[in-house]
Amino acid sequence: MQQKTFYLSSTSNEHVKRWRRLGESTRAVKKFGTTLAEGLHLAQVICERGIAPRAVILSEACSRQARELALAAAGLEAQARIYELPAAVYDQVCPVENGTGIMIEVPAVLADRPMQPIAADALYLDGVQDAGNVGTLIRTAVAAGVRHIAASRDTAGFWTPKVLRAGMGAHFAARLYENVDVEDLRSMFAARRLGADARGGRDLFRTPGWEETATVWMMGAEGPGLSEKALAAADARFLIDIEHDCESLNVGAAAAVCLFEQRRRRLLASH
Amino acid sequence: MQQKTFYLSSTSNEHVKRWRRLGESTRAVKKFGTTLAEGLHLAQVICERGIAPRAVILSEACSRQARELALAAAGLEAQARIYELPAAVYDQVCPVENGTGIMIEVPAVLADRPMQPIAADALYLDGVQDAGNVGTLIRTAVAAGVRHIAASRDTAGFWTPKVLRAGMGAHFAARLYENVDVEDLRSMFAARRLGADARGGRDLFRTPGWEETATVWMMGAEGPGLSEKALAAADARFLIDIEHDCESLNVGAAAAVCLFEQRRRRLLASH
Repeated sequence: MQQKTFYLSSTSNEHVKRWRRLGESTRAVKKFGTTLAEGLHLAQVICERGIAPRAVILSEACSRQARELALAAAGLEAQARIYELPAAVYDQVCPVENGTGIMIEVPAVLADRPMQPIAADALYLDGVQDAGNVGTLIRTAVAAGVRHIAASRDTAGFWTPKVLRAGMGAHFAARLYENVDVEDLRSMFAARRLGADARGGRDLFRTPGWEETATVWMMGAEGPGLSEKALAAADARFLIDIEHDCESLNVGAAAAVCLFEQRRRRLLASH
Repeated sequence: MQQKTFYLSSTSNEHVKRWRRLGESTRAVKKFGTTLAEGLHLAQVICERGIAPRAVILSEACSRQARELALAAAGLEAQARIYELPAAVYDQVCPVENGTGIMIEVPAVLADRPMQPIAADALYLDGVQDAGNVGTLIRTAVAAGVRHIAASRDTAGFWTPKVLRAGMGAHFAARLYENVDVEDLRSMFAARRLGADARGGRDLFRTPGWEETATVWMMGAEGPGLSEKALAAADARFLIDIEHDCESLNVGAAAAVCLFEQRRRRLLASH
């Protein structure tokens, strides 16, 4: 396997330039169709799931564990090479702070939209711009069994390195749809559209039966919440009962409450 | 009120130096006993709750709304002055990215520990180091009605500007205890200690009765989870039922699920 390792020290190398751009812009992720998965944890997930990498990037200062994972990941794909970079060059390319010395360039795969509406649970993100929030939302949805995740045009790109890192590997267990207009949800999912709204609606905990069919939970941005357009497309609005002197929950916390209330009801109903 | 406004342009001014240090180090927050609340939202919360500020800091590039909030905040405390800074100096001092041009220096208040164990719900953070996570956890706990929040020595400081900003004002509705050893919980709270543990334990949703007494929910750090010491001090461990191909939830999502399952059970029991 050692012959797969190449040493790169020039910041003008075409690969180094591409990796730097992947970390800097969502547009680069779309243009190249790849992204950078940084860190030991994502490397482990990629190996476990057998995701074929385009390239494996190591810092010369990386740990032995990172080197072992690099070999395992490169072994998944005949064409994949390991590139070892001086620590200073690696840090320039690395899209996250406190990198752990291993990055894997993997395909940034968006799912094809269903031709017919499918009766599946989904999560819809309406203008959620914070990368950490979007990654956590993907992780929470997959953990709750909701594997179709769609986002409006103004939501942070699912496959940017920061969102991928916050997702902790959940991306690879999800079907991700970008640039989805709220009106498109009807043609994609045969499911009730439930809007989480801090301003009003039915009581999530006290309203019976909403979990009995497939649902698309719609979550809005921090601050403004769901857009008027999204609220208009919702079949029902739901409110989480919180203390009176609080305005709202963080979007990640609100999604966790809604999606796990759905999961709880279905788990208990199946017994 | 206008006579309260002072113009500061020197980065060597003692106030400017203090504000910069408050943004940079937890130690400075402890030393000065104050912190910086950045942004329009926190300024509104401070005005609504009548928190007496030490100082109000404006960027000369701030909005009219920021100016109005600055006057309202400064009006809460006879000694409080408004300091207006050139935009470049403000940005140097501002502890968060994309600042909105208003910061308020407020007391960083930690609660006195109860002399006798109190029968109150609490949240205990065991080594949670990410500032955004800690702020979100405070916000989620307060929204769920859990207003006593304690943290181990290795958890991010509650009153650092980044944690305060992520808390979105919930700090001012909570009683916050720092440097709390897990062994101290017994002398502070007459409540069952419930450890959230991704590795095993009772099923949160299927186990009856745990919400019937006061609880201290204990949440561990990303990655390692609860420390051995914390697990040993727990009266019971609880597991959230998630999909088999996921390892765990983000600590903020896990806390939202546990604390709102507690809230849901109590809300429904009271009817």
